[in-house]
Amino acid sequence: MKERLKELLEQVREGKTDVEAALSELRHLPFEDIQFAVVDHHRSLRQGAPEVIYCEGKTPAQIRAIAERMLAKRSDVLATRADKEAYKALKALDRRARYNELARAVVIEHKKRPPTDGLVLIATAGTTDIPVAEEAAVTAQTLGSRVETMYDVGVSGIHRLLGRKEVLASARVIVVAAGMDGALASVVGGLVDKPVIAVPTSVGYGASFGGIAALLTMLNSCAPGVAVMNIDNGFGAGFLAHRINMLGE
Amino acid sequence: MKERLKELLEQVREGKTDVEAALSELRHLPFEDIQFAVVDHHRSLRQGAPEVIYCEGKTPAQIRAIAERMLAKRSDVLATRADKEAYKALKALDRRARYNELARAVVIEHKKRPPTDGLVLIATAGTTDIPVAEEAAVTAQTLGSRVETMYDVGVSGIHRLLGRKEVLASARVIVVAAGMDGALASVVGGLVDKPVIAVPTSVGYGASFGGIAALLTMLNSCAPGVAVMNIDNGFGAGFLAHRINMLGE
Amino acid sequence: MKERLKELLEQVREGKTDVEAALSELRHLPFEDIQFAVVDHHRSLRQGAPEVIYCEGKTPAQIRAIAERMLAKRSDVLATRADKEAYKALKALDRRARYNELARAVVIEHKKRPPTDGLVLIATAGTTDIPVAEEAAVTAQTLGSRVETMYDVGVSGIHRLLGRKEVLASARVIVVAAGMDGALASVVGGLVDKPVIAVPTSVGYGASFGGIAALLTMLNSCAPGVAVMNIDNGFGAGFLAHRINMLGE
Amino acid sequence: MKERLKELLEQVREGKTDVEAALSELRHLPFEDIQFAVVDHHRSLRQGAPEVIYCEGKTPAQIRAIAERMLAKRSDVLATRADKEAYKALKALDRRARYNELARAVVIEHKKRPPTDGLVLIATAGTTDIPVAEEAAVTAQTLGSRVETMYDVGVSGIHRLLGRKEVLASARVIVVAAGMDGALASVVGGLVDKPVIAVPTSVGYGASFGGIAALLTMLNSCAPGVAVMNIDNGFGAGFLAHRINMLGE
Amino acid sequence: MKERLKELLEQVREGKTDVEAALSELRHLPFEDIQFAVVDHHRSLRQGAPEVIYCEGKTPAQIRAIAERMLAKRSDVLATRADKEAYKALKALDRRARYNELARAVVIEHKKRPPTDGLVLIATAGTTDIPVAEEAAVTAQTLGSRVETMYDVGVSGIHRLLGRKEVLASARVIVVAAGMDGALASVVGGLVDKPVIAVPTSVGYGASFGGIAALLTMLNSCAPGVAVMNIDNGFGAGFLAHRINMLGE
Amino acid sequence: MKERLKELLEQVREGKTDVEAALSELRHLPFEDIQFAVVDHHRSLRQGAPEVIYCEGKTPAQIRAIAERMLAKRSDVLATRADKEAYKALKALDRRARYNELARAVVIEHKKRPPTDGLVLIATAGTTDIPVAEEAAVTAQTLGSRVETMYDVGVSGIHRLLGRKEVLASARVIVVAAGMDGALASVVGGLVDKPVIAVPTSVGYGASFGGIAALLTMLNSCAPGVAVMNIDNGFGAGFLAHRINMLGE
Amino acid sequence: MKERLKELLEQVREGKTDVEAALSELRHLPFEDIQFAVVDHHRSLRQGAPEVIYCEGKTPAQIRAIAERMLAKRSDVLATRADKEAYKALKALDRRARYNELARAVVIEHKKRPPTDGLVLIATAGTTDIPVAEEAAVTAQTLGSRVETMYDVGVSGIHRLLGRKEVLASARVIVVAAGMDGALASVVGGLVDKPVIAVPTSVGYGASFGGIAALLTMLNSCAPGVAVMNIDNGFGAGFLAHRINMLGE
Amino acid sequence: MKERLKELLEQVREGKTDVEAALSELRHLPFEDIQFAVVDHHRSLRQGAPEVIYCEGKTPAQIRAIAERMLAKRSDVLATRADKEAYKALKALDRRARYNELARAVVIEHKKRPPTDGLVLIATAGTTDIPVAEEAAVTAQTLGSRVETMYDVGVSGIHRLLGRKEVLASARVIVVAAGMDGALASVVGGLVDKPVIAVPTSVGYGASFGGIAALLTMLNSCAPGVAVMNIDNGFGAGFLAHRINMLGE
Repeated sequence: MKERLKELLEQVREGKTDVEAALSELRHLPFEDIQFAVVDHHRSLRQGAPEVIYCEGKTPAQIRAIAERMLAKRSDVLATRADKEAYKALKALDRRARYNELARAVVIEHKKRPPTDGLVLIATAGTTDIPVAEEAAVTAQTLGSRVETMYDVGVSGIHRLLGRKEVLASARVIVVAAGMDGALASVVGGLVDKPVIAVPTSVGYGASFGGIAALLTMLNSCAPGVAVMNIDNGFGAGFLAHRINMLGE
Repeated sequence: MKERLKELLEQVREGKTDVEAALSELRHLPFEDIQFAVVDHHRSLRQGAPEVIYCEGKTPAQIRAIAERMLAKRSDVLATRADKEAYKALKALDRRARYNELARAVVIEHKKRPPTDGLVLIATAGTTDIPVAEEAAVTAQTLGSRVETMYDVGVSGIHRLLGRKEVLASARVIVVAAGMDGALASVVGGLVDKPVIAVPTSVGYGASFGGIAALLTMLNSCAPGVAVMNIDNGFGAGFLAHRINMLGE
Repeated sequence: MKERLKELLEQVREGKTDVEAALSELRHLPFEDIQFAVVDHHRSLRQGAPEVIYCEGKTPAQIRAIAERMLAKRSDVLATRADKEAYKALKALDRRARYNELARAVVIEHKKRPPTDGLVLIATAGTTDIPVAEEAAVTAQTLGSRVETMYDVGVSGIHRLLGRKEVLASARVIVVAAGMDGALASVVGGLVDKPVIAVPTSVGYGASFGGIAALLTMLNSCAPGVAVMNIDNGFGAGFLAHRINMLGE
Repeated sequence: MKERLKELLEQVREGKTDVEAALSELRHLPFEDIQFAVVDHHRSLRQGAPEVIYCEGKTPAQIRAIAERMLAKRSDVLATRADKEAYKALKALDRRARYNELARAVVIEHKKRPPTDGLVLIATAGTTDIPVAEEAAVTAQTLGSRVETMYDVGVSGIHRLLGRKEVLASARVIVVAAGMDGALASVVGGLVDKPVIAVPTSVGYGASFGGIAALLTMLNSCAPGVAVMNIDNGFGAGFLAHRINMLGE
Repeated sequence: MKERLKELLEQVREGKTDVEAALSELRHLPFEDIQFAVVDHHRSLRQGAPEVIYCEGKTPAQIRAIAERMLAKRSDVLATRADKEAYKALKALDRRARYNELARAVVIEHKKRPPTDGLVLIATAGTTDIPVAEEAAVTAQTLGSRVETMYDVGVSGIHRLLGRKEVLASARVIVVAAGMDGALASVVGGLVDKPVIAVPTSVGYGASFGGIAALLTMLNSCAPGVAVMNIDNGFGAGFLAHRINMLGE
Repeated sequence: MKERLKELLEQVREGKTDVEAALSELRHLPFEDIQFAVVDHHRSLRQGAPEVIYCEGKTPAQIRAIAERMLAKRSDVLATRADKEAYKALKALDRRARYNELARAVVIEHKKRPPTDGLVLIATAGTTDIPVAEEAAVTAQTLGSRVETMYDVGVSGIHRLLGRKEVLASARVIVVAAGMDGALASVVGGLVDKPVIAVPTSVGYGASFGGIAALLTMLNSCAPGVAVMNIDNGFGAGFLAHRINMLGE
Repeated sequence: MKERLKELLEQVREGKTDVEAALSELRHLPFEDIQFAVVDHHRSLRQGAPEVIYCEGKTPAQIRAIAERMLAKRSDVLATRADKEAYKALKALDRRARYNELARAVVIEHKKRPPTDGLVLIATAGTTDIPVAEEAAVTAQTLGSRVETMYDVGVSGIHRLLGRKEVLASARVIVVAAGMDGALASVVGGLVDKPVIAVPTSVGYGASFGGIAALLTMLNSCAPGVAVMNIDNGFGAGFLAHRINMLGE
Repeated sequence: MKERLKELLEQVREGKTDVEAALSELRHLPFEDIQFAVVDHHRSLRQGAPEVIYCEGKTPAQIRAIAERMLAKRSDVLATRADKEAYKALKALDRRARYNELARAVVIEHKKRPPTDGLVLIATAGTTDIPVAEEAAVTAQTLGSRVETMYDVGVSGIHRLLGRKEVLASARVIVVAAGMDGALASVVGGLVDKPVIAVPTSVGYGASFGGIAALLTMLNSCAPGVAVMNIDNGFGAGFLAHRINMLGE
């Protein structure tokens, strides 16, 4: 593609093709190849930012190979859904690899980012929601956000939440991870005037249906300002929370 | 059936059948007829208590006819899902008929029952849940319970609920009607140590699925002591609340 | 209970209680105990008929113990969902135990029943539906029905079914076991004028949803004369087929 | 097609084609045309039997036209899901037309069939299930079965059912129509040793989901000998009940 | 955009920008504008082909306006889900407008296309599936395909289908529209070696769930070579059938 | 917080702050800390009552640590969903630990509570529902309720239930655990005039959908006075049954 | 409540109550009343901000009354799901009322807010998604955000979206409203690095299930940075978009 | 059957039966046996074509036995869902057996087919969709189609797809395998004017529901010309793609 473009421009320069004809040809060139260049260019601007490996269904060797390529591009690495074997493979690749076992996440950073002014607060209804919350926390932190967590403040013991209303008020964006009845998102949404990202978790039994009950609760939240992620999608919540948080920097 | 029983007993009296033979025959008689008598007997003990007409799908004439038979037995009458035409038919039958338009319920009482000591408290998350709550209220009241209501105390404005914690504490049993996210039942369940009857309402749009979202939330409530009725089943909630309330009288 | 009855009858005999009073008391006795006797009596009439053990979730020892009690009552034994361990336990108990491995069923019979005149035909759409079909076959056979099977005659190769139309016509009742699209029941229902019992099987993948697709297909069968059993319920189909078959004997 | 067959046979007769060649050609003729003949032949044997018009979605004129063709073939006519307009159209066509308003069914019979010895019993849990039950009753009756009904014997007042156990015992096949919790089928299935055809009805509100709750209850019946029809499919239940009933004649 | 391109080319011609620099800039221009031109160009090649208006939710005036613009571009017009009002508006706009009432479709053609050699066969299980089938037929015909229909050949009367096997064999692609049990697609798929496009229809009641039962049946078809469209999507089926048909021209 | 309150009151006493100013400051203090105190206060009143550990997803070490803290506060301990490893850990911690293997529950009590007068009756439809029932029984007993059980009284053998009607009548509240068709709750609800708590169990196969069929049956119960818990939630049922039972003490 | 607080403080001042005693009483006062004061205080700070009336299920008179109270508090008014009758009632109340018919929203503003720097971009896949998008647009605008819209850029004509990539890049937060396949959210999420709020719309037929298909698509978006609102919840999307937008001001 | 036919024809030849009588008898012969012959005949024409073994649920010995019979008929063999044990069994049977591990497919070919002119293009959204895509590829290739693949071109990175638009344009039919949001099918459908076969994959977590989310997305595709296969049905997609591809040869 490049070749044809070059040739065309040379023909213009040499007067072999007039401007109108070149213009016409240019407009009929398959746009996607040009676009490919553009994208590459943009990509290069982002060098150094963390890239993500979703480890589920990949062998340690595959994970290591992907991470190696990322590090070669000077990207930081965030590996989610990583078990201990995945961690060992990454640790062997790069000694800076750190493992958050609860979040099942591995992080390799070239240089620590200075945390944002804005605070991403991550709350859970129960202790069983913590792994999802930790995945969100690691993700937002690795991307550069300042993160605090507030666990086990579910609505069946509402005073635990109300007793920490100041922390809620100090956050720029709040992630709420909750399974079972998923009601925490509504209560938090009613207490703050900041964006709330609700993540249903697959915690629970019986008619919790692997998180669907909590998902529906959250979609139907009476509190405005609440948006919902997929079940157990801690990574997505942390990623979006960071994006929103960056708007205020 | 009666006839065979009488004949058998007369044979015993007259010595035509000995006791063992009669015993044997008795044990082989179709039990259900005997049982029918027993039940009738028990039924008679309950005379005067309200009986219920579910009006949906019945003509005003049919409703009137059923009510007439009930009143003849000295029963009070509670007609649920009653529209204005049903009310008119019942008013024409008996001038004491009173209509609760919100609850869509008509009541005809021979004599006002003295209210119970115990309080049935009926709370709603929003204003749109009130018809279901009123059906519950009318039902419990007609059965004899003292009833109070507390409307529009949903969790997205949690202070409205917390500001009335004393009323919550004073109730013997609490009915919570809520649609959308249905989270109120969990919060109430965490604030009190009394039975909570949760009624999902079909209020809402989108993924509320005509009350299923609220139903699932309530079934998955993290607060213990919460049991769930069918969607929009205000009558059932009021009925059960009264039953529970009566245990404490 | 018996005591009170006896006493009452003796009082009648002795003239201490008149017939009307005894009649009245009899009618108010708790019917269920009398009924219990009746039921026992009826039960005794059925001695020798097979009783069924659903083995799933039971230990070999439990299965053996239940079978022992059944055999003591001179009942035949049909054990469904029986794995090899269950079979061994039953074989050790009674050498007559026979195992149908495909059907996962064990049968212990005191005496072979003469087969019925009427034929129960059991058809499957594919080879993977055979275990469910075999469970139906063993059940109907053990209860006394003459059974034939016709496997792998699914509608995507309709000639295999049509080529055996005479066998279809000779049956008194037909069981159709099919997973995936479950369409065989409709086609069979359209070819015969006998009752068709459709059993969806959990065979299949993707959107077969463990048999739900086949279940819905069968419920919506355009052919009249088709009734549906629960998914994989070969036992229920065989049992009902035998009941229907017996009507023609 | 006939022509080719005739020609072929004439060639054989005339010695122009030998047997082997004719045999070969015969085996390669499109079977379906032959089959069509066969089917036609069989069809003619059934003349006089009732044929069925499903009226929903058809105009009175269409219904009348279909009925006219049926009557011309000397078939009886059963029109289901027929509203009053449909009835008027059929009455205008043939004065013998009778309308069962509850069942929404019209019947036109050339000659009354003598009822079967065997009894089809049709039971409902509540009064709202009666239209479906009546559709089943009209269908079985029109096909020739002796039918009795037993309405409003739902399990929440179990004595009403138990009090009529003798009628249950006298039936050859029982249809149970029930909405809401659909539990009647299980109880009836436990009381009799005859085939039970369960029809879920779309009666109910909330989580009855237009009959799905009752459908699932019936599919999961603990009582053996119960098979299930589609929701509200009274016609199908009556049709199958008649088929089963005929086996005992 | 064009302006910048022109300017750039002129700079190259005039030697003000060398080829490498121009090349670089070109590769960083927002690709989408170039692409827009390309697309426009391609679009112009398709002039004269029919364009489609989905009428549901549009006023007759809106439909007329859209059709007017299409006709101005010399496109033919196919309006689906068109009621009589929509037809009147289009007839008033252009006297060539023809209405297929069953299909609820209006067609305005500048010039009749010569039909394809290949045949698109459109079959239905019942008469109630015909509107969806007709929508498919009108669509494929308007696009240029030769179309035949074969209605009411559902599997509960399998001989009606088998009796027309030759027509089935003569088609290049077959559309099967069926509601209720949706089994026709599987049977057809087993009889032919051509692509089968299955369209579930929302015909039926009870557990047909507005076409879901048929949809699942078709997705789970045991016959290979069957692909599935959305419920009632006759247009989509006709469109795809034509596309496939064109491959053989 | 206490400090600021004290300081403020001292300032008032010393005249450094006037009443209005103090009032104003008080009203703006973060309420939740005050509330926290209140809650603590109330909590202390409950010392000695059992606290609950949900063991699923916790290691034996974690369970032991939580129990240790509970015992230190003089609470009794109820550990649900406890496997044998959990039991061993608790037995090692405190020799009073007792294990109900069926219920999978461990109890450690400082002092046996005297049982209530009121009776909590726990019934099951089948033997496979017993683990859920036992969890309910252990829970209610540990909280202090007198408990009786009545197992395997499902509706397909209705006489087993009717034969024990007196026990039903003697209970203050009844828990019904049932899987499959879940019909027992409706029948029990029709036989008694006490609150019935229905617990669907995940027993069953095919279209029982892990308890959903039973859940829907129970929600749609025609008998008034029935409320529903989540699938398999024996703990919740026992907890609520005790709460209701206490109202009558 | 205030009274008791005041009295208590006066007692402290006057030395009638010592500090410790007052402290103790304060800690046992019902916290919620204090909290109520706090909340009231905060509420007053927000005076002038728009308040929202959800009109569905309310009479014009009710809507007018609510608006009247809002205006009296100097709040702006946003009425959603408002039909023409609602608009007339509000116009009669306040001549400044403006109606966005597509969005079915009425706005009454005391003073126009200056728009934010940050841009809320609202995109739709098709024209039928516009009402939901307009509701989002009106909401965000009334709250003070600068809003642009980009309609009918669905993925089946991907060039329409790509041709406006610059507008996408200029937004601070993007709302995507889409029904049918809901795929637009994923594509937009992959093109920008800003928060994307996805709103499924109930547009579509067949297996779109009133928006569930689009809802699931959006929840499962492969592009990070996408959060999801309830079906058709344009108000919620506009509200949250404004909240996020404000973080960047 | 043959015997009766032969005899009949001989009688005709010998004049023992006249043509009309033979004709009549022929028309009443069970058609299915004739048809069986026809089918056999047709089958034989297809000798050499590949036959398929679905290995799931079959033992290596069974698979080997089936393959042996196929090879004996000179058919090629395609074994899908084959694990390594299955492969070993087939390799031991025939050394030509080749294993595509990703596709889990084994192929044994007597002779390589020359590939078609037309191209079957198989695209995936992500890398996790590749096994399904490979199953489609192996299937189409073994049947004789020329196949190319284009993996990991999902819509969240739309440029990767657009950059290969020429390959898309060169295909005669395109298979799109995608899980999660399944949006790729819509985008591809909008870019090409060829048939698109969409295969949802069970990749994903949370509310992807094992492929249902992608299935619904694809069924609701806004792009015309897209038909859908069952979840993970790579074989079906490859089979249908080949059928369509063959139309253009």
